[in-house]
Amino acid sequence: MKPYREMSREELLNLKAELEEKYQEAKAKNLHLDMSRGKPSAEQLDLSMGMMDVLNSTVDLKDSEGVDCRNYGVLDGVKEAKELLGQMSEVSPDKIIIYGNSSLNVMYDTVARAVTHGIMGHTPWGKLDKVKFLCPVPGYDRHFSITEYFGIEMINVPMTPQGPDMDLVEKLVSSDPAVKGIWCVPKYSNPQGITYSDETVRRFAALRPAAEDFRIFWDNAYCVHHLYEDQQDFLLEILDECEKAGNPDIVYKFCSTSKISFPGSGVACIATSPNNLKDIKKQLMIQTIGHDKVNQLRHVRFFKDIDGIHEHMRRHADIMRPKFEAVLDTLERELGGLGIGSWIRPRGGYFISFDAMEGCAKTIVAKCREAGVVMTAAGATYPYGRDPKDSNIRIAPSFPAKEELAAASDLFVLCVKLASVEKLLDK
Amino acid sequence: MKPYREMSREELLNLKAELEEKYQEAKAKNLHLDMSRGKPSAEQLDLSMGMMDVLNSTVDLKDSEGVDCRNYGVLDGVKEAKELLGQMSEVSPDKIIIYGNSSLNVMYDTVARAVTHGIMGHTPWGKLDKVKFLCPVPGYDRHFSITEYFGIEMINVPMTPQGPDMDLVEKLVSSDPAVKGIWCVPKYSNPQGITYSDETVRRFAALRPAAEDFRIFWDNAYCVHHLYEDQQDFLLEILDECEKAGNPDIVYKFCSTSKISFPGSGVACIATSPNNLKDIKKQLMIQTIGHDKVNQLRHVRFFKDIDGIHEHMRRHADIMRPKFEAVLDTLERELGGLGIGSWIRPRGGYFISFDAMEGCAKTIVAKCREAGVVMTAAGATYPYGRDPKDSNIRIAPSFPAKEELAAASDLFVLCVKLASVEKLLDK
Repeated sequence: MKPYREMSREELLNLKAELEEKYQEAKAKNLHLDMSRGKPSAEQLDLSMGMMDVLNSTVDLKDSEGVDCRNYGVLDGVKEAKELLGQMSEVSPDKIIIYGNSSLNVMYDTVARAVTHGIMGHTPWGKLDKVKFLCPVPGYDRHFSITEYFGIEMINVPMTPQGPDMDLVEKLVSSDPAVKGIWCVPKYSNPQGITYSDETVRRFAALRPAAEDFRIFWDNAYCVHHLYEDQQDFLLEILDECEKAGNPDIVYKFCSTSKISFPGSGVACIATSPNNLKDIKKQLMIQTIGHDKVNQLRHVRFFKDIDGIHEHMRRHADIMRPKFEAVLDTLERELGGLGIGSWIRPRGGYFISFDAMEGCAKTIVAKCREAGVVMTAAGATYPYGRDPKDSNIRIAPSFPAKEELAAASDLFVLCVKLASVEKLLDK
Repeated sequence: MKPYREMSREELLNLKAELEEKYQEAKAKNLHLDMSRGKPSAEQLDLSMGMMDVLNSTVDLKDSEGVDCRNYGVLDGVKEAKELLGQMSEVSPDKIIIYGNSSLNVMYDTVARAVTHGIMGHTPWGKLDKVKFLCPVPGYDRHFSITEYFGIEMINVPMTPQGPDMDLVEKLVSSDPAVKGIWCVPKYSNPQGITYSDETVRRFAALRPAAEDFRIFWDNAYCVHHLYEDQQDFLLEILDECEKAGNPDIVYKFCSTSKISFPGSGVACIATSPNNLKDIKKQLMIQTIGHDKVNQLRHVRFFKDIDGIHEHMRRHADIMRPKFEAVLDTLERELGGLGIGSWIRPRGGYFISFDAMEGCAKTIVAKCREAGVVMTAAGATYPYGRDPKDSNIRIAPSFPAKEELAAASDLFVLCVKLASVEKLLDK
């Protein structure tokens, strides 16, 4: 089929009639499918059921240093949990604080602390007239929600295949002392699946911010979440690069086991410089006596070490890969060459990012919903939910079963076609 | 022996020499004991080891509503966890939000939210020139740390055997719009073990604060922590009283299983009015996708219901009671009638509160430490660590073994005597 833009009005009208008929047929199927959130499937969760067996009433719940993990204490995490999450984060255990079940919560707390108490002695952000964050777009809606909640102005920075547009990042960070942070998902980014290039990481590490309390919020959520054993992306370790660049305190790195073991019942951490750790602990000791050490122990005893995690992630990949491929194959087969959408084939992470013709994303998502398939809200990948081009749609293939996914993908491409034809006829 | 104050100078000098000799002997024993924190003993923790068995890889991890507890979601807690902690909190499950492992963290977050975003549409506390909290004294050091951390001015309110001095509370709360909160441990209070009387609770419920965003921070940490089956304190349920008094939104009630199952690996909650819940959830949905539902399920399956919790607490009491009695008996035997200290015999909770002669607490604690027994720092039970009379010492009998406790108590009373004699001679 030829590109839609090259079609005559009559051809488009015929196509529209044909697509509408198909759409009515699809609606009649009464689908109830959800491609909206990056939730692991039940099959993936089953992979971690063994974690429920490693601790039982006959097992000693002391850590390697003899700490009774059942009791109060140990603010920053048990030794072996720091080692395991240190390996995952590619930093030494002494640069780690282990938190509770959610890295989102860690990021929220990190922003909240900067707002109420400032970073390393600097003015609390809450006392400033204006605080700004850079937001590579498309990006993760829950990052944007945190900064919006705290009244922080968000500035869009376009993503490139190598990561955020670093010319723009450098310009904004070095010229405006109100720019205090940037949200990054540097590996298998949400939603595009892009991994920042070495040059991008080095340029981040070498930033010369106008604000001394500028921090990179480096959410390494998908650090071990590859889809292909033999085609992995590699990300430079940023703390190390920052140290080399004489910028040791510029980055907070976040990580968790949420999409490794059980989402919501995992272990999260922050990795950062000694100065930042000291600063964070001053608050943490007020906020809590310590996080769930029994769950830390449970994770360590189940995964043992980073090899155990990699092995486990290969099993996740075996489940995820066919789902990604089902969606991608449908996109290619049905939309390839039509000029009404583009997408990236990711090598890891949880999402496929789809860019529709300008002004079509909301319509596509609405049409999908009307026919029983829930997609992430159009605009969600942009700060304030405003995609200036109304173009980006995040597809989350992980949760539905593979057969469901085929039905959902078929519907999705149908809605893309229909919305595109309508748009072209409307011009 | 006669009261120290009635002794002649010579008698005191002789006594001092005798006590000093005993103190040197005690030091030679090289004790290493800790009565500083309210930590359950290993024997108590063993009571909950069965909790490690209720979930295993063959058990369905769905809640009663069919929610897969392994996955993301359910912001405010699974249904049966709300029911269980609702029973503990004596409120209906729909007034509960289940949190993570620490009620301290819930209280911190509650204050932090008021500071950054205000309560139910009122001005964020962080934007006000002055915010004040009332602090019944002696009280819990970690409460005071939170308010101090946020720059909230703390005002001491003396405790009476019925709870805080309500004349003073009413006067301050009704006259000063800067007074935004009060910290309460209403049952088996920390450190005195006092339970607020019905009249006190009703007067709290009937407060008419000058500040519409005044809240009572009702930390019901020891709600089921009785020492005696047949001598329990009863506390009026405050949410109910507040509703009756036309003050439904005035209280946040906190509760957790920390000293029921495993401290640090328990489940915490807040119980409050629908208006407050709605206000809290607006923030909570930004902060997290949800707390650890698997651990919620683990607790519910282990305890089953409130009867299971009461049964379990009887076992805790069987371990705690002899320890409390060992300390109290030593106090009575060694200090009774000497006029150099007073204490309350609590019927629950985790502490014994000791009031030394004015100006002696720091010296006593220092002498104990010098001889190998760590007590809670003198002053810790007061805001800013400043006990104006330098008199109150918190004794935590739970953690040491009973034999250790005898040695520690003996040393403690010796240090009390010695410090008192020194004080009297010094006048």
